[in-house]
Amino acid sequence: MPKFFVSPGAAEGSSLVLTGDNARHARVLRLRPGDGVTVCDGCGTDLRCVVTDIAGEQLRLAVQASGPSASEPPVRCTVYMAYAKADKLEHVIQKATELGAFAIAAFPSSRCVSRPDDASARKKLERWQKIAASAAEQSGRGRIPAVRILPSFEQAVLEAARCDLPLFPYENERTLPLRAAVRAAPFSTASIMTGPEGGFSEAEVCFAQQANMKICSLGPRILRCETAPLCALSAVLYEAGALD
Amino acid sequence: MPKFFVSPGAAEGSSLVLTGDNARHARVLRLRPGDGVTVCDGCGTDLRCVVTDIAGEQLRLAVQASGPSASEPPVRCTVYMAYAKADKLEHVIQKATELGAFAIAAFPSSRCVSRPDDASARKKLERWQKIAASAAEQSGRGRIPAVRILPSFEQAVLEAARCDLPLFPYENERTLPLRAAVRAAPFSTASIMTGPEGGFSEAEVCFAQQANMKICSLGPRILRCETAPLCALSAVLYEAGALD
Repeated sequence: MPKFFVSPGAAEGSSLVLTGDNARHARVLRLRPGDGVTVCDGCGTDLRCVVTDIAGEQLRLAVQASGPSASEPPVRCTVYMAYAKADKLEHVIQKATELGAFAIAAFPSSRCVSRPDDASARKKLERWQKIAASAAEQSGRGRIPAVRILPSFEQAVLEAARCDLPLFPYENERTLPLRAAVRAAPFSTASIMTGPEGGFSEAEVCFAQQANMKICSLGPRILRCETAPLCALSAVLYEAGALD
Repeated sequence: MPKFFVSPGAAEGSSLVLTGDNARHARVLRLRPGDGVTVCDGCGTDLRCVVTDIAGEQLRLAVQASGPSASEPPVRCTVYMAYAKADKLEHVIQKATELGAFAIAAFPSSRCVSRPDDASARKKLERWQKIAASAAEQSGRGRIPAVRILPSFEQAVLEAARCDLPLFPYENERTLPLRAAVRAAPFSTASIMTGPEGGFSEAEVCFAQQANMKICSLGPRILRCETAPLCALSAVLYEAGALD
């Protein structure tokens, strides 16, 4: 069944109207009155709808039922990734959205080579949010992960630490195996925090540890900065049954 | 400790010589007699060596000890990926190598849009093997995964099915959850077989099922053809303790 994302406000009440890109997409699909579609509010609620009327550029839909999206993972896992060079962050935003990340946050850290200034960060953020929206739509998500920029490493840690399973993979960590960290207790919220090309400094690892993040291994191989978050996210979602 | 890959033949005996790119790299690192290095035969054996002599373009090393590489996963997991457009296969070869794949095989399937002819396949294969070698070196693998081309979907299935855990993720599969498939029994060999942009045909899924592959879910989201194998590989390696 075709799926359309609308803003949360547009999905209230017993009828709604598809406009703009949604209406254009509906025309490409040659939707007709009586056809069923799914409308998603981008926040985890799906509406089962029927096309009632097509007028000019717009489609009117009648809402038949609504409920939580069946394609959202049972756990809320947020990816915190330090700024990285080139298009690596964009790659992670796209893939993490597909895999089922709840949200994505970018932040500066001491070894970041690339660090956008405020103006360029605002521009990038707009682009990043579009990448997440497009990946959510293509993968059939019921939710568009919010993409945010955090002003400092410390702020990112303090926020990331506030969840059931705050993972901080670190390449020199040989004490806490990933499985032990993930399986220590049931969790409904998780965060995964990873560094830039050069990794985190020892002082940063120390700060994260003091904030009660779980400093853990991702195995003896050294993963690139764009591979580590997606590998850890896959493992956490697997453990939570989100890949079942 | 610096690590060098040599061909398996070069790593026999009690001494060996670094030449070519390895010797150039050693000069960049300013290695001197007495310095310790690790030499890897690319097949899972690491040699602990000491530089004994530097003459012109070459370095002579004395082998002090040898043993299985500590950075290789405890399971051998091979990725079978159908030909995909553009650089997606290259992306998967690089990332799967980093993550710890044992080998990678490419094959044609009915919905493949891109399908190289023999001459271009040979050329690509050479490039793919270089990508795997470079990713193995960067990530500290003890083994360079072999990259191969298989002539048909059927041949790929028959080969992939010959292991303890032959996974065949399929987006319409809602019967066998990934965790149930992976946790059904202990495994030391696994394969992950994924399709091109348009997925596998029903006939292909049927063939894989009859060959005793485990048709399984990767969750309710639709993953891109380059995301699915890496997600499944991360999950399998996680379960096997390779990320601990």
